[in-house]
Amino acid sequence: MADPRFSRLADLAVSVGANVQPGQIVGVTAQVGEEEAARAVAESAYRRGAKFVDVWFFDPWVKRARMLHAPDDTLDFVPDWYGQRLLALGEGRGARISFSGPVAPGLMDDLDQARVGRDQLPFLKEVGQIVNDRTTNWNGIACPNRAWAKLVFPELDDDAAYERLWQQIEHVLRLDEPDPAAAWETRMEALNGSAVRLSERRFDSLHLEGHGTDLTIGLFPTGIWWAADFETVDGIRHLPNLPTEEVFTTPDPVRTEGLVTASRPLVLRDGTIIRDLTVRFEGGRAVQIEAATGADALRSLCAMDEGASRLGEVALVDREGRIGPLGTVFYDTLLDENAASHIAFGSGFSFLVDDEDKSRVNKSGTHIDFMIGSDALAVTGIIRDGERVPVLREGTWQM
Amino acid sequence: MADPRFSRLADLAVSVGANVQPGQIVGVTAQVGEEEAARAVAESAYRRGAKFVDVWFFDPWVKRARMLHAPDDTLDFVPDWYGQRLLALGEGRGARISFSGPVAPGLMDDLDQARVGRDQLPFLKEVGQIVNDRTTNWNGIACPNRAWAKLVFPELDDDAAYERLWQQIEHVLRLDEPDPAAAWETRMEALNGSAVRLSERRFDSLHLEGHGTDLTIGLFPTGIWWAADFETVDGIRHLPNLPTEEVFTTPDPVRTEGLVTASRPLVLRDGTIIRDLTVRFEGGRAVQIEAATGADALRSLCAMDEGASRLGEVALVDREGRIGPLGTVFYDTLLDENAASHIAFGSGFSFLVDDEDKSRVNKSGTHIDFMIGSDALAVTGIIRDGERVPVLREGTWQM
Repeated sequence: MADPRFSRLADLAVSVGANVQPGQIVGVTAQVGEEEAARAVAESAYRRGAKFVDVWFFDPWVKRARMLHAPDDTLDFVPDWYGQRLLALGEGRGARISFSGPVAPGLMDDLDQARVGRDQLPFLKEVGQIVNDRTTNWNGIACPNRAWAKLVFPELDDDAAYERLWQQIEHVLRLDEPDPAAAWETRMEALNGSAVRLSERRFDSLHLEGHGTDLTIGLFPTGIWWAADFETVDGIRHLPNLPTEEVFTTPDPVRTEGLVTASRPLVLRDGTIIRDLTVRFEGGRAVQIEAATGADALRSLCAMDEGASRLGEVALVDREGRIGPLGTVFYDTLLDENAASHIAFGSGFSFLVDDEDKSRVNKSGTHIDFMIGSDALAVTGIIRDGERVPVLREGTWQM
Repeated sequence: MADPRFSRLADLAVSVGANVQPGQIVGVTAQVGEEEAARAVAESAYRRGAKFVDVWFFDPWVKRARMLHAPDDTLDFVPDWYGQRLLALGEGRGARISFSGPVAPGLMDDLDQARVGRDQLPFLKEVGQIVNDRTTNWNGIACPNRAWAKLVFPELDDDAAYERLWQQIEHVLRLDEPDPAAAWETRMEALNGSAVRLSERRFDSLHLEGHGTDLTIGLFPTGIWWAADFETVDGIRHLPNLPTEEVFTTPDPVRTEGLVTASRPLVLRDGTIIRDLTVRFEGGRAVQIEAATGADALRSLCAMDEGASRLGEVALVDREGRIGPLGTVFYDTLLDENAASHIAFGSGFSFLVDDEDKSRVNKSGTHIDFMIGSDALAVTGIIRDGERVPVLREGTWQM
């Protein structure tokens, strides 16, 4: 029989997350190994009146065959219809749901990382566009699978690891609350409040210091901060990430300077794990990328276009969230980024600046978050006249 | 470790079947449960120099959720991008490979069959168009899975059923020959010879008699017979079906008269099994469809458009093939149709008639083969002056 936990998780993604409307087409991105979750989402969405649920199953083992055997000069090729499907979903005002959590961790580890980095699938460059167009109500949700559980809890046996992962993910998704929707309403009010206070200060830049980091990130004059509490152009409210604990803005892509050290491992979409990452920025550009593992794959990704080596996002996470206190390294961006403050290479968010700054927001075919926050990271806002305002100290808001 | 039988089957599909060319995009249609085969095809195609292998995994359990919960008036909806992907494959002169064999037999049996019949996925109406355009080199190949094995050999335990299905499919695919490609070359020479002899007689109609059948099928004046040995518009030879044992033509859709009784169960793409099927034709149209099970699903399919209740294909199968002698009912059209003579509702093959008859070839968004042949079926060709020429008696060519 189907595991009822998938049904509850799917209902959360469909209702509180994407807020699927009757008559919508729902595009689901799943990986092979996530069938139960995909089916539960289909059932939940159809019950809610969806017109069609289109599940795209991506198979990382097919990608591995490509990495092993395809000619070098074809590795960044993506058939036109992959992106056209996404753009058509946007034009038709559809909904989108995807699952987060590696299904095949380490699958590409023995391969040439420079080759692996050239193929970004299942990520599509058109995602940045339809996110900025705000034409789809969407949700990416953390969803357990057995391979992932073994990665996170290698000391436990298979069943115990899987149960432990479920337990932690139900906790961070507020599925252990009697009314998860109400719990999310309360949390979003707090995050929206933090975003409003940060926006009001109109910082010229942020200074991040501690834990191997001394980084200054320039901000846009018209930039504002948001929590992940979105509305489509047609006014459909949705929570694009579950869980979410962050407030974020889109920085000036030419004004980041200094050194940053990642505070958690970064797991690329293909399962490549980048450990002990440090990045040096000059004039907004990552000029030096070092890591204990996976550096070549990340360098390759950052070389895919001009914007891939510049920042598109800076996000702050406080200690009130549910992920950080678990002390778990999930090797999954959606979870780990919401445990700690983070920055992202690649595409920015043009809806976070006024028209005069829109053309300067970072553009790229990729978006790669990596975690830099910890209790040791001090975040200071610098106002245009040079005044320094404490923002986060030991994970606690100072404003 | 991967089962090496999938690699050998995949190599046959990629080389002898679709004849994938270096630089081609290969569209693979698989169902959830066929991952090993899809990965083996990807590996084989990339080794052969494919530019990209695009695997579309269809999940019948997602379809079941739709059948259970989606509104009636949405059930025939298919997003535009499903067909556009196929047409783009054709425009780009890609290759196509798909697997045959039910992955979830009986999955829809407890549902409202009239609703089930309105959703033809994973079949796409654009398939008929690109087959007729001859823009893709393609292959559909029989491919074992465990659920199918239990359906075919219910008296065996799971492992034994799976091994037996593999053994029989390797036999009919000539994978038990030292040189499968050479074995197929020999068989195609024989089938092409039969097709040439049938074409030369220019029959006005065929009369099929015996085993509950008394049916006359009118043929086109310019119609010819083919074996499943195709060339694309660019001259890429390919075998679209593996196995194949048939020679076929496209009949005049307004000149079929009489009663036909299916000689084997018909399994629809969604797993619905139609048993003891009889169909009465008047003026080329199926005016009465009766069956012990699944009649509503077939009636619903035949009502989808004008051509769906008329014939697009008539095919003759002799006793020299490898499928008939096994005596196995595979509950799979590709195998069962090649065990016995068959006819098909829906789209015909315009490349089998000259320009003067092309506009009269049957058009439809569907194509449903069903088996009518047996040793008891006598096939007689009727020449324009009324002369009757024995064609098949007890499964043996008379010409």
